[in-house]
Amino acid sequence: MLQSIEARTGNAIGERWEESTAAAVDAAVQAGASASDAFAATSAAQRATLLRGLATALEADREALVALADRESGLGLPRLNGELDRTAFQLRGFADVLERGGAHAFIDDHSIAGAPPAGRPHLTRVRVPVGPVAMFSASNFPFAFSVLGGDTASALAAGCPVVVKGHPAHPGLSRRTAALAQKVVAAQGLRAGVFQFVEGGSIEVGVALVKAPAIAAVAFTGSFKGGTALAKVAAERPRPIPFYGELGSVNPLVVLPAAIARNGAELAGTLAASICLGAGQFCTSPGVIVVPAGVAGDGFVEAFAAALKASRPHAMLSAGIRATFDRGVAQWRAAPQLKPLVNEVVDATVSAPRPFLAETSAADFIASAQLHEEVFGSAALVVRVASTDEATDVLKAVGGSLTVTLWGADAESDDTRSLVRAATQVAGRVLFSGVPTGVAVTAAQHHGGPYPASTQPFTTSVGYAALDRFLRPVALQDAPAWLIERKGVPC
Amino acid sequence: MLQSIEARTGNAIGERWEESTAAAVDAAVQAGASASDAFAATSAAQRATLLRGLATALEADREALVALADRESGLGLPRLNGELDRTAFQLRGFADVLERGGAHAFIDDHSIAGAPPAGRPHLTRVRVPVGPVAMFSASNFPFAFSVLGGDTASALAAGCPVVVKGHPAHPGLSRRTAALAQKVVAAQGLRAGVFQFVEGGSIEVGVALVKAPAIAAVAFTGSFKGGTALAKVAAERPRPIPFYGELGSVNPLVVLPAAIARNGAELAGTLAASICLGAGQFCTSPGVIVVPAGVAGDGFVEAFAAALKASRPHAMLSAGIRATFDRGVAQWRAAPQLKPLVNEVVDATVSAPRPFLAETSAADFIASAQLHEEVFGSAALVVRVASTDEATDVLKAVGGSLTVTLWGADAESDDTRSLVRAATQVAGRVLFSGVPTGVAVTAAQHHGGPYPASTQPFTTSVGYAALDRFLRPVALQDAPAWLIERKGVPC
Repeated sequence: MLQSIEARTGNAIGERWEESTAAAVDAAVQAGASASDAFAATSAAQRATLLRGLATALEADREALVALADRESGLGLPRLNGELDRTAFQLRGFADVLERGGAHAFIDDHSIAGAPPAGRPHLTRVRVPVGPVAMFSASNFPFAFSVLGGDTASALAAGCPVVVKGHPAHPGLSRRTAALAQKVVAAQGLRAGVFQFVEGGSIEVGVALVKAPAIAAVAFTGSFKGGTALAKVAAERPRPIPFYGELGSVNPLVVLPAAIARNGAELAGTLAASICLGAGQFCTSPGVIVVPAGVAGDGFVEAFAAALKASRPHAMLSAGIRATFDRGVAQWRAAPQLKPLVNEVVDATVSAPRPFLAETSAADFIASAQLHEEVFGSAALVVRVASTDEATDVLKAVGGSLTVTLWGADAESDDTRSLVRAATQVAGRVLFSGVPTGVAVTAAQHHGGPYPASTQPFTTSVGYAALDRFLRPVALQDAPAWLIERKGVPC
Repeated sequence: MLQSIEARTGNAIGERWEESTAAAVDAAVQAGASASDAFAATSAAQRATLLRGLATALEADREALVALADRESGLGLPRLNGELDRTAFQLRGFADVLERGGAHAFIDDHSIAGAPPAGRPHLTRVRVPVGPVAMFSASNFPFAFSVLGGDTASALAAGCPVVVKGHPAHPGLSRRTAALAQKVVAAQGLRAGVFQFVEGGSIEVGVALVKAPAIAAVAFTGSFKGGTALAKVAAERPRPIPFYGELGSVNPLVVLPAAIARNGAELAGTLAASICLGAGQFCTSPGVIVVPAGVAGDGFVEAFAAALKASRPHAMLSAGIRATFDRGVAQWRAAPQLKPLVNEVVDATVSAPRPFLAETSAADFIASAQLHEEVFGSAALVVRVASTDEATDVLKAVGGSLTVTLWGADAESDDTRSLVRAATQVAGRVLFSGVPTGVAVTAAQHHGGPYPASTQPFTTSVGYAALDRFLRPVALQDAPAWLIERKGVPC
């Protein structure tokens, strides 16, 4: 059953309703499959028009959408208005990419007469839409990583129908957004199968969607547990399909002595704000703060802990997410190798949690696999290191992360080279200033890192390269002129 | 135990020797890991010099290498000389790509002042070498898909050390080629870990290599059974890694009425030759021939069967491969829905097999999953179709293939559009003339298709895009100038 719930109070809003049945999931996938060839054959201009129409529809319904999102998520109007802006910007950004030819770029190798290896046929490398994409919305970005978020935008831009699974933490908003999208699709004369919507809180709906034979790829943003379980389902299908899972991350942030000396006090405040942004419910929230041992580091940690203690995160997205946060913090509280620094206990019935911070040594952190796991929310560990080698060992112990931030690596040295090397080995994005929360939508963006951050770390779920996940390369050998003109996609 | 065996006679050559121990595999991986950072930091010019040095070394030892390859594989001197040429061409081709900047291409998005989503930091998308690559040689191309083949060339070009597992079907050649490579690496002052070699016929050696924690990716060319088993090992590691498996394929070839009318007799001979090339031991060998029902199709099938009957494939690569071929043909012989067309039984002790051909209907083919499996060798099925719809249904039943060939699709029509659509959905390469055996090494090439042809169908194991498998994107945010100059790879 689905139920819209007010995040700040836990009160139910309106009636409960049934989740999508197996038959409904199947019908949605069938509709997607039957629209697949025709949608693949639409022009870049047609798909750009669709994406812009979706952006305009979102903006036109802004007031109602944001109010509903705020009730269901508790994220607040300023953040949600900004997130809607970003979502519309992203849809239009993909439209621009399409018009610049991005989806239909191809490589043409003319034939060379004579025997191989130098002699060769005419080869044209095109990219074809992979087919219907199952898209799993995230709870923590009700617009940008939900029904009309980056996964949907990039799949539609690629020419793939989407079957969106709405997130049960904002079921009312999901329905309303989906209805808007379906109206735009219909108004533009496209088949309804181009955008399909299913909903449900049970595991069954997601599993049925991933197992549906006509689904060609899956895009998922969510928890490690849910993502790895669905990735396994995708891998064990009679025909396995790509599973693009973005699973969250501990996002190490390394504070070097140069940064502390320059503006440590300011950075301490910036860091606390990043950890509390959206009640810490960002997959890029910094969770492991690497700080030098010694007096300068002590001062930074003190200022950081004070700033964090003074922070007041708002209510979390749902009771379930709050309970998971409380369990994670309780484990850290009980861990003997951790020394709590910010540790105010509040009743779990109070909807807004308090941030948590504890300190440990590099050796203890590296030795304790449980400390490498994300606690989703405003909680972090300070890891004190005696040397650059220890700092790189901490990064290597984390193993895979969406981001690593290096504060104070502006000058080249053996130390900064070594840290950059370790950071690029474990992360998909390496920052040299600012905080990892906030992911710009650009061509150069890469939002995906080695396991456990992502299931496919060579791909990104944010930025225009997200398109590449849904366009499979095909080499056409001695293709007739009519097909070259169509860039390999016959209508 | 390893043993060099003369393919044509089955006679042992020289002494047997032990396969690599677990400790030896571990030492090879450790050497690769310890060379990884330094090799990642080499310049494109240094790696180009390495690749050209390897090509030159192969050519300098041509006579001995080809003679050894011929004894161990039975593939014949002309083919093996050509294959060595191709292997050297491929190594030099990657060197050229490096010098043109291919491995270090990056996207630079300047910063934009102001609030997001339009405002953004400076983002630079670079690609970093993924780390040590485990490379599994194939039996059927002792040069081009073996020790110094395309996987090794592309991994080295990317800046990744390789740990090559030699194929036990040509163990003497593998050792000799590896020794050559190690000499070149040493002569160029590179660490020995850049190129490591292990060998073995048992499953254990391969599993140990894939499980080794420092291995960052696997490249594999071989059987569906072996490839899917190792892919599972890679997925079940504590940290899963990409497994690039090229597993073989049935390579449907559709003969349209236009092609029969134009030059059916000639094509029938071309097709028979393609199926018998290298005794059918090509992953791109045509295994499913789709021919129209009716008189014109009858004539084509008759000519094709006659040409195939007159063919004399040479000995197969090994007794094991021959036994697998015989088992596959025996199953087809016993299948009630197949009518044998070329079906000469020879004693299994005779080293050269006879080709096998049988005919079936589209309906029977589609309904029989066993008929969709590759029989590796000179064996194929003719599937008679009454319509274009039936032909596309046959392609869809195959599901995934390295190639689909469409003969006679030069003119645009509903039929050819429909066939091209189906072909691009199931294959990584679609040919409009010629035969699929033979894969040109170019930038546009794509050698990889949907499951069961490949485990990662968005990637290619042949052509210059093979590099992309070993370079993981990383976005640098506000990177300092010194790092931008180094394109994200600090030395």
